[in-house]
Amino acid sequence: MELSDIYRNYITCLNQQDWSKLELYVDNDVCYNNMQIGLSGYRKMLESNFYNIPDLHFNIQLLIADSTYIASRLSFDCSPKGRFLDLNINGKKISFSENVFYEFQKEKIIKVWSIIDKVAIESQL
Amino acid sequence: MELSDIYRNYITCLNQQDWSKLELYVDNDVCYNNMQIGLSGYRKMLESNFYNIPDLHFNIQLLIADSTYIASRLSFDCSPKGRFLDLNINGKKISFSENVFYEFQKEKIIKVWSIIDKVAIESQL
Repeated sequence: MELSDIYRNYITCLNQQDWSKLELYVDNDVCYNNMQIGLSGYRKMLESNFYNIPDLHFNIQLLIADSTYIASRLSFDCSPKGRFLDLNINGKKISFSENVFYEFQKEKIIKVWSIIDKVAIESQL
Repeated sequence: MELSDIYRNYITCLNQQDWSKLELYVDNDVCYNNMQIGLSGYRKMLESNFYNIPDLHFNIQLLIADSTYIASRLSFDCSPKGRFLDLNINGKKISFSENVFYEFQKEKIIKVWSIIDKVAIESQL
């Protein structure tokens, strides 16, 4: 199976909030932005994201893969309930992108480097 | 020549501020974050970056390529003179990353989607 196919299944798993399957895609020792949060911390982060952004949906806009890495540009149209990235959103509908890199080890995500376009969100407030 | 080699030469061109060579790497009709700024606008943007950040240097941290796209994680240790991304930096040394995608056409950059980690900068102020 190609890494890009695994990654698309991972994104489907997120969009379905099918947390029991997260371990198929994410390593126990996963690092997120240079912090080793582990699978349980990763799941908590995602659950918290969906709690704070009830209409959260991940859309793959651009996907580049080699044998070890995935780079993905994700786009979002959603309405965070309260504060997001230290900004008062309060349910306003916003659109923004995330440029994110993933390192895979044995077909599971072991490292993530994510940047969300905060400047684009600020321009909509 | 591999796209990744062309890209590394492009980054060298930027670090040397060798603007006469920029046209070797950047298409006349280049779009930056969905705005068609063209080669001259692109050069102005870069010149302005180096004017506002005299110690600017592009470091490739991660590079993923296919036949059309490059995804690159760039890291920076630099001291913007005044304001940067609407933040008061005033010469303070900061470290941050940029996750950026490039679409190539005939071995030249035609589209760029860049996100700078503003949250990381804010945490250093």
